[in-house]
Amino acid sequence: MFASNCFQKKETVVAHILDDLKKEVESANEIAVERMMQSAPFWTDINLAKRLIPNMKDAMLLHAGPPVEWKDMSGPLRGAIIGACLYESWAKTKEEAERLASSGEIEFDSCHNHQSVGPMAGVISPSMPVYEVTDTKYGAKSFSNLNEGLGKVLRYGAFDQETIQKLNWMKGTMMPVLSQALRDLKKERGGLDFKSLIAQAITMGDECHNRYNATTALFVRELAPYLVKCDFDKEEVAQTLRFIRDNNFTTLNLGMASAKAMTMAAHGIKYSTIVTTMARNGTETGIRVSGLGDSWFTARAPSVSGVYFPGFGREDANPDIGDSAITETAGFGGFAMAAAPAIISWVGARSASVATEMTQRMYQITFAEHRYFSIPSLDFRGTPTGIDIRKVVKTGITPNINTGIAHKQAGVGQIGAGLVVLPMDLFKKALRAFASRYLN
Amino acid sequence: MFASNCFQKKETVVAHILDDLKKEVESANEIAVERMMQSAPFWTDINLAKRLIPNMKDAMLLHAGPPVEWKDMSGPLRGAIIGACLYESWAKTKEEAERLASSGEIEFDSCHNHQSVGPMAGVISPSMPVYEVTDTKYGAKSFSNLNEGLGKVLRYGAFDQETIQKLNWMKGTMMPVLSQALRDLKKERGGLDFKSLIAQAITMGDECHNRYNATTALFVRELAPYLVKCDFDKEEVAQTLRFIRDNNFTTLNLGMASAKAMTMAAHGIKYSTIVTTMARNGTETGIRVSGLGDSWFTARAPSVSGVYFPGFGREDANPDIGDSAITETAGFGGFAMAAAPAIISWVGARSASVATEMTQRMYQITFAEHRYFSIPSLDFRGTPTGIDIRKVVKTGITPNINTGIAHKQAGVGQIGAGLVVLPMDLFKKALRAFASRYLN
Repeated sequence: MFASNCFQKKETVVAHILDDLKKEVESANEIAVERMMQSAPFWTDINLAKRLIPNMKDAMLLHAGPPVEWKDMSGPLRGAIIGACLYESWAKTKEEAERLASSGEIEFDSCHNHQSVGPMAGVISPSMPVYEVTDTKYGAKSFSNLNEGLGKVLRYGAFDQETIQKLNWMKGTMMPVLSQALRDLKKERGGLDFKSLIAQAITMGDECHNRYNATTALFVRELAPYLVKCDFDKEEVAQTLRFIRDNNFTTLNLGMASAKAMTMAAHGIKYSTIVTTMARNGTETGIRVSGLGDSWFTARAPSVSGVYFPGFGREDANPDIGDSAITETAGFGGFAMAAAPAIISWVGARSASVATEMTQRMYQITFAEHRYFSIPSLDFRGTPTGIDIRKVVKTGITPNINTGIAHKQAGVGQIGAGLVVLPMDLFKKALRAFASRYLN
Repeated sequence: MFASNCFQKKETVVAHILDDLKKEVESANEIAVERMMQSAPFWTDINLAKRLIPNMKDAMLLHAGPPVEWKDMSGPLRGAIIGACLYESWAKTKEEAERLASSGEIEFDSCHNHQSVGPMAGVISPSMPVYEVTDTKYGAKSFSNLNEGLGKVLRYGAFDQETIQKLNWMKGTMMPVLSQALRDLKKERGGLDFKSLIAQAITMGDECHNRYNATTALFVRELAPYLVKCDFDKEEVAQTLRFIRDNNFTTLNLGMASAKAMTMAAHGIKYSTIVTTMARNGTETGIRVSGLGDSWFTARAPSVSGVYFPGFGREDANPDIGDSAITETAGFGGFAMAAAPAIISWVGARSASVATEMTQRMYQITFAEHRYFSIPSLDFRGTPTGIDIRKVVKTGITPNINTGIAHKQAGVGQIGAGLVVLPMDLFKKALRAFASRYLN
């Protein structure tokens, strides 16, 4: 009955879903969002991707966003793929890497199909170190790569020698150092309670997508007593601590893996209209919905409105890319902007009131207010949590995401940061599928 | 001409000062506040008080607030004096300590007379470790003791075995560990730039009087790379890091010493009506003014309005005590409340708007907006800086201070936290003295 023309009758469809299935949907969403909030992600391991990530194969590269083939990949994603081939020693030059990538010998897959997430290009290769996060409430595991900091980095599509050297240092030094500290911390506390860190950081000016200053400082505060007791060469431990000190984004990837665990807990609830994935591969943006299994609903990746580094402008920018919108999916990041007025200049907003308005607007499209993430300046109101595709379509308001901006060409890197609004089409497609599935 | 009845003609006096000396006062205040803001406090040393603090004598105890004799000391200050006598092994029991303290054999002096500050009772004895802060712009040095954390602590008047043991651990372990880390940090960077830490922390939900969560985390982030390279037993270094991890007030004392350095830079400017000291000893509150030398203007210490720990109430509370109001004197602490909405429940305010209103009100009695401390939620407006006694008297608004509440009896400790408004009388007395000095 809701055939191809159903969105000529958008209100009718929404009304149907709201009316006929209201009870089922409401109670499914109640369960989904409750699970999202009760999920308790702890950082529990760090090791090579091939040792931790489920179904990671020897000749496989994971990437951000919905699945995409080499021929359709945007510049920064191609750049990161090239870099990963060089890092894995599968190729010696850019050209060799491109030939390999287009040959079909490497399997590409979405991080999300492997319980994983990666910022920007989000490329994870078998020999890259990844964090493992365990949902100590519901048991699921999620994964993310390590953050390389700012400058020329793989996640923004850079693949020069400096980029690869840093990745090698992360594997050879940072990973084993963090691993040993975590091992000892885990003995005492079962892992690092990352949900608690996010909750604290949201009272400390982080929104935990584009600003992780407090989270990273708290991370060091928690880890330092274990790091000093490492058996490693002291200079290697100090190197690791200096790298973290100089990179406030260190904890972004752990925040994203935590958000992935939270949203996985909310996924697969029959009748639920709650969004459990939002991700972009630089070509397309895709979402998944709790009650709609593993289907992706996709649309062309939008452009980002923001501020550019000197010498770059809108014409250099790649469309929106990265898995980091998982933070907004879990009720923080751009949705917690009111907690992070210090970020406004970074994303190009003109006044702190913009931050508050962004959060206020997101309450209109979410199902709940977070039990654990609360915003001091809003009198500790919980962050808007659990995007409801019904509300998005009904209000015409789509989620606001904070993000970085990558150059559209492979090899250049980050050129700015800003805000992006996801296309309405994603949510219409999802609602249409929901109608097909549950109203027939 | 401004004799004893001058405050029957308050407006006349203020008008005179504003009119006759306006030019001199304005330009003096300009210099004073500019120096306060340009002062650049770095943490540069940690050692025993007798090795660092100028004119510290073998049988001397420093305390918070204006000078006060044993017979006039309040319970918590007496408790801290008793504890210091036990810590120095000058006495073996409470009674012995009390006899000694009342005998005249110990010299008591205000911390401020020794470029020092201490929170709450603020007692510093010769063998206590203290931080040295150097104003790398104007050269002055300031000092503060180390923070003991919450619970039974000397600064709130406790003196039991646990309290003394902790002080001994701080001298025997924490001080040498921090000293070695600082030595290496100093070689690279000349010390720890504490003004930069405060500026960052104010964008991270600290007001840097009652909330030092971000500052302390940033402190660990800065220090950790040096701490891991210490030659000490790893367990001692880890103990120090755990102690800091569990005590967000660790950096309060460094923040206070930094504020002391800033206000010292503003002190002694002829014609300046800027307050350069606000301090309370639990009996009296006192202020000093830039253009009025080292004279204290005092009034009875007011009571604190706040929230109490379970089992305690207003009737148990000692009047306002401590040197920590030096933070407000330097333009942060209670004056930066708008930056720290998360603190409202700790000080008993009902809504985050109270925090914003407090800061807004303080703009009415201050001379400038801080160049370096800015509040993101107010679109990065500088914190209200440089209390002008003319404005206080003219507006009838006295400074708001965030503070802890001590039990009125010696030996009990902290029983709550809250807000206090300083008595108008302090500022009237100072303005009267200003008139006598400059208008005669």
